[in-house]
Amino acid sequence: MLDRLRDIVGDKGLIADPGEMAPWLTDWRERRQGRALCVVAPASTAEAAAVMRLCAEQGQPVFPVGGNTGLCFGAVPESGRAEKPGIVLSLRRMNKIRAIDRAGNIATVDAGVVLGDLHTAAANAGRQFPLHLGSEGSAQIGGLISTNAGGTGVVRYGPMRDLVAGLEVVLADGRVLDDLAALRKDNTGYMLRHLFIGAEGTLGIITGAALRLHPQTPNTAHAWVSVADAAAAVALLAAMQDRAGSAIQAFELVSASQFELVVRHVERIRIPFDAIPVWSVLIELSSEDGSTDLGAVLEEVLGDCLEKGTVVDAVVAASQQQADEFWHVRHSVSEANKKEGIGVVHDVAVRTSDVAGFIAAADVVAAARYPQAVTQVVCHLGDGNVHYILMFQRAFWASLPDTEAFALEVEQAVHDVAARFRGTFSAEHGVGRKLTEELERLADPLRYELMGKVKALFDPHELMNPGVLLPAKAG
Amino acid sequence: MLDRLRDIVGDKGLIADPGEMAPWLTDWRERRQGRALCVVAPASTAEAAAVMRLCAEQGQPVFPVGGNTGLCFGAVPESGRAEKPGIVLSLRRMNKIRAIDRAGNIATVDAGVVLGDLHTAAANAGRQFPLHLGSEGSAQIGGLISTNAGGTGVVRYGPMRDLVAGLEVVLADGRVLDDLAALRKDNTGYMLRHLFIGAEGTLGIITGAALRLHPQTPNTAHAWVSVADAAAAVALLAAMQDRAGSAIQAFELVSASQFELVVRHVERIRIPFDAIPVWSVLIELSSEDGSTDLGAVLEEVLGDCLEKGTVVDAVVAASQQQADEFWHVRHSVSEANKKEGIGVVHDVAVRTSDVAGFIAAADVVAAARYPQAVTQVVCHLGDGNVHYILMFQRAFWASLPDTEAFALEVEQAVHDVAARFRGTFSAEHGVGRKLTEELERLADPLRYELMGKVKALFDPHELMNPGVLLPAKAG
Repeated sequence: MLDRLRDIVGDKGLIADPGEMAPWLTDWRERRQGRALCVVAPASTAEAAAVMRLCAEQGQPVFPVGGNTGLCFGAVPESGRAEKPGIVLSLRRMNKIRAIDRAGNIATVDAGVVLGDLHTAAANAGRQFPLHLGSEGSAQIGGLISTNAGGTGVVRYGPMRDLVAGLEVVLADGRVLDDLAALRKDNTGYMLRHLFIGAEGTLGIITGAALRLHPQTPNTAHAWVSVADAAAAVALLAAMQDRAGSAIQAFELVSASQFELVVRHVERIRIPFDAIPVWSVLIELSSEDGSTDLGAVLEEVLGDCLEKGTVVDAVVAASQQQADEFWHVRHSVSEANKKEGIGVVHDVAVRTSDVAGFIAAADVVAAARYPQAVTQVVCHLGDGNVHYILMFQRAFWASLPDTEAFALEVEQAVHDVAARFRGTFSAEHGVGRKLTEELERLADPLRYELMGKVKALFDPHELMNPGVLLPAKAG
Repeated sequence: MLDRLRDIVGDKGLIADPGEMAPWLTDWRERRQGRALCVVAPASTAEAAAVMRLCAEQGQPVFPVGGNTGLCFGAVPESGRAEKPGIVLSLRRMNKIRAIDRAGNIATVDAGVVLGDLHTAAANAGRQFPLHLGSEGSAQIGGLISTNAGGTGVVRYGPMRDLVAGLEVVLADGRVLDDLAALRKDNTGYMLRHLFIGAEGTLGIITGAALRLHPQTPNTAHAWVSVADAAAAVALLAAMQDRAGSAIQAFELVSASQFELVVRHVERIRIPFDAIPVWSVLIELSSEDGSTDLGAVLEEVLGDCLEKGTVVDAVVAASQQQADEFWHVRHSVSEANKKEGIGVVHDVAVRTSDVAGFIAAADVVAAARYPQAVTQVVCHLGDGNVHYILMFQRAFWASLPDTEAFALEVEQAVHDVAARFRGTFSAEHGVGRKLTEELERLADPLRYELMGKVKALFDPHELMNPGVLLPAKAG
């Protein structure tokens, strides 16, 4: 098997040495450990297809990996079958930007391109690729598509799903589905593309993609708004949509309990109010057009809302420096939480109109069942995506007999609250190996049954990332 | 069978009288004639599911119909089996707007709601539903989703696919897939929704939908621009995107040959130039925000393009009346063509960057093979959607031995040109029964094979609109 793989990808494309392989067998936080025959890195779609054909012939599972930045163990190779450990398939050598079509607003890229490199290439063409997240320096396009990545731009541009105009996919039998024409309109039958987006590598291997570029938006304005509660933030969002819906670039809702930790643990933090607001809304507007005074638009809408009582207080950034200070506070959340204690973080989404109700209901459950925790909210309000956090002190955590079981219990309690609002337990992080049981527990049974049938259709021999999303049957 | 159907839907929901049934057995242009046991109109999702269960038990095909405004015979009932003619399923009695969620920007509706009624309901809530097309007074939501309708708003808001946030679908076995939570973010497994969008009723019956609303855009500006060729129009589009990409509401490219017919056949036509431009671009910008002078933005971009030579001449509408005059010319195209002769109309799409190349190549083919025709272009340039028209005089058409065979030959010739640019032969009209052979001829074979497998998965007994999209096997 190793020799035949080497024949396909060459020495440069094969890692079989246990020491060199080690980082490929675990997630980046090193919480979970897998096993594989080797790591294979094809340099082209043809090589990837040949590798897949060989694995299909040999019955060896294939575990695709992108930048390995996921949080749900979706890239940890665990076949569950001692005699068929499978291979890790890395697309890092497939890192070419194949073409930038400026008039068509399409970038066609290899799946191994790193997100940050695509940002640079788009900017060089006078365009932007508007997906932004913390790991953009290492996350790869194939993984970002396979996990339907989110990030801060979703309120305006949608998640990765909305930015994919076409795919190139190696199927489980090694055939290549070429869907890179990237037409804006095409009504000739079933849309298969969306099955692969967010499938976490369980239906095929994405080797290339056609991605939508957008115009650059150099004109920006920023505000930090104090509101009394989450319901007021929802009303403010509606008012802002009425007046400048197409220009809303970010709309983030954060609880005082969260920003208090930022002030406590992070340096160079400036709050533009006398005290941290009970609830803060951070807003960015942006536009291609330089002639609109977006700061004036913000002031007008916020002024109206102050009069109506929707808003308690507001500061529009007077300079880019002040805007940077606002966002520095928002972006320091992870650092502060890490310093504070053990945060059980949830990636819940409900409808925007249900965010206030969800937070209130989750607070009731948290107060009753986990009085040891402080609850914090960091919410992409425009998407209804609530990172609801229960923060425990390290001493309490150390006193637990089984921290994993406890964390699962907390998570299930919060997921159940989301389910009461028809919400989801995984808005942007995916399922991976971490949440397969939650998926089975919470998914609509009919949808879950159909998912199993789709899996069987595309991957009848369970070779594509088995054990991710759906439990491995052959295990 | 009729009695059992009547038990489910009542007298009001059943038409079995041949005279009353007649309009349901043909398309609105009465070009193709079908046959059915009866027309069934359930009043609820539960009734629709019960009808489907009965049909599954009896092996009777189900032919769903919306407003019957399609152009490809997708709603004509033709089972191809004498003993199993099947039923026509109309959702016209399911016409309730279930809920408008203003903060969440979601309208949840029955599939039988007429598009125009949704426009009204959205406007009453201070929002818009931005899908607009000629038949909006009768086209129904279920049909618009099943055909992934396009229209003039696609350049900004995307086709129907981009406006669907959730679906309720009755499957072939009568079970109901409830996917109406309408979350902006949900990464919990395979995205099945997009399979049903554009499936033309062949995988399930859409009984309800959650649709995305958008803010209203009362601030508008309009321009009529003269350009030398299609390539210049593409360059103008790119310049307009740079400056005002988010505000482009319409961007239409029309050949002089087309507008000459409008001037010849339609009344109250005013052209704001001394002569009809060789190529005309009609642009609308619009914004939520009233403070931006969109007319000034148009003038600035067009002024730059005049200097660079991209644009020959341009008029920005000085009043709403003049803007209405511009668009009256554009919207008179169908009327003019009907009066002129026999137009063989194509619904081709290529990438925007390939539009100029496609038109040039199609002109070469048309001139060589059909010198009797005048060629006309009406193009939604932002979507790459070219309605390429060969206009024949009636006398020539009457001299043909077989007009249908001739039309098919013309169509195939133009479709072949589109295929050379990786374009599609059906951008927004769908496949229906009209273009199943073109789909088989032109689709990527692997994609076509997978489509057949998806069909077999969802509809193993071929009861869902058999013969549409894919040829009926049981026929």
